[in-house]
Amino acid sequence: MFDSARIKALTFDVFGTVVDWRESIIREGQALARAKGLDVDWAKFADAWRGLYQPAMNRVRRGEVEWTKLDDLHRMSLVQLLGDFRITGLTEAEVDDFNRAWHRLDPWPDAVPGLTRLKRRFILATLSNGNVALMVNMAKRAGLPWDAILGAEVARHYKPQPEAYLTTAALLGLAPDECLMVAAHNGDLAAASAQGFRTAFVPRPAEHGSSQSRDLKAERDWDVIAADFLDLAGKLGC
Amino acid sequence: MFDSARIKALTFDVFGTVVDWRESIIREGQALARAKGLDVDWAKFADAWRGLYQPAMNRVRRGEVEWTKLDDLHRMSLVQLLGDFRITGLTEAEVDDFNRAWHRLDPWPDAVPGLTRLKRRFILATLSNGNVALMVNMAKRAGLPWDAILGAEVARHYKPQPEAYLTTAALLGLAPDECLMVAAHNGDLAAASAQGFRTAFVPRPAEHGSSQSRDLKAERDWDVIAADFLDLAGKLGC
Repeated sequence: MFDSARIKALTFDVFGTVVDWRESIIREGQALARAKGLDVDWAKFADAWRGLYQPAMNRVRRGEVEWTKLDDLHRMSLVQLLGDFRITGLTEAEVDDFNRAWHRLDPWPDAVPGLTRLKRRFILATLSNGNVALMVNMAKRAGLPWDAILGAEVARHYKPQPEAYLTTAALLGLAPDECLMVAAHNGDLAAASAQGFRTAFVPRPAEHGSSQSRDLKAERDWDVIAADFLDLAGKLGC
Repeated sequence: MFDSARIKALTFDVFGTVVDWRESIIREGQALARAKGLDVDWAKFADAWRGLYQPAMNRVRRGEVEWTKLDDLHRMSLVQLLGDFRITGLTEAEVDDFNRAWHRLDPWPDAVPGLTRLKRRFILATLSNGNVALMVNMAKRAGLPWDAILGAEVARHYKPQPEAYLTTAALLGLAPDECLMVAAHNGDLAAASAQGFRTAFVPRPAEHGSSQSRDLKAERDWDVIAADFLDLAGKLGC
């Protein structure tokens, strides 16, 4: 039985769940293209950049490289893609700035009003693979009212490794089942649930664009299933 | 030369600088005394509890015990003081709750309005020896608008050890001299300054009660000296 009265903190996946990374990267790419006179299919570029995300983290998860924060993984992937897409003429400072496009992602329209309602009753913490600086800068720009920035970097383990979830709960001084993991990805919820977290699924059917085929719906009987963050707030009595 | 335009984040000492731990612990003690029929000099008790703070952290700093978060150090000190003050008849749950008095400290009157102004322009992060849960719960209750909860626990080193400062700056993705350490304690600013932080002194002459003898004024030419957080906001152009 799920009893929301036992929940003290909501822990959030961020990329895809809170922010629309794909349209934001496309927007940033288009701005760069205008400034530098580039001709690039930015939707393809955004998908390719995100496509290198799991393989890059896998090298860290498997211990092939020492702990590397996501900003640095993004930067290595970006250098590779600049070659693949034959984008030339960028200074190192311009590459750095474009890499920080991930700090400037826009929230889904319901995210800020939903979080604002949820914050009245619950601790709101990030449990993302994004590093602390990325999450802080994103929150500052987008107005995301987090109570704490936790997750992979402070745990030095990338989701879905158990340490990412368990360290976040421990830093909040909470038992896993006092934490409700909120994500648009069934796999993230499965990993959180395996560590004792409660689970809330919020679908983001446009995360990967109009042809998205995965995570269109809840694949298990998660504790809460909500249409968006406002519906989540309503379902949790906020 | 100090140029506030280079500052990206303000990092805050919390106990004494942001919150009035002494009067808050006295208030919590008086509430416990009413509930349990105790007769205790709570000002003496508060001073004694805080008096065990540095010795307890010293054991961790010197490596005599493994990393222990402040909640647990506070709990060990509390058990000792309950004996010293001959306070009996508390259940384990009551001792736990009184230990969490440190999660319920009240801010100085200028703290919330000052931080609210400073937050418009700067990242605001805790750089306290308090653990994450303590800082999150305190902020939630008092309305402290932190952007990030960092400091000793995520660095696993207690101030004034260099790692506490350097890890906090690194997690924010900033150079130390892009961070302004704000504290009511000259020693904290000296340690931060030694790691390259810029420094702001805000005196809290009643932190230790009416007979306070230390940290009544700036002992060095810190980058900023402000009467309170509102004055600090004004001096930083917020």
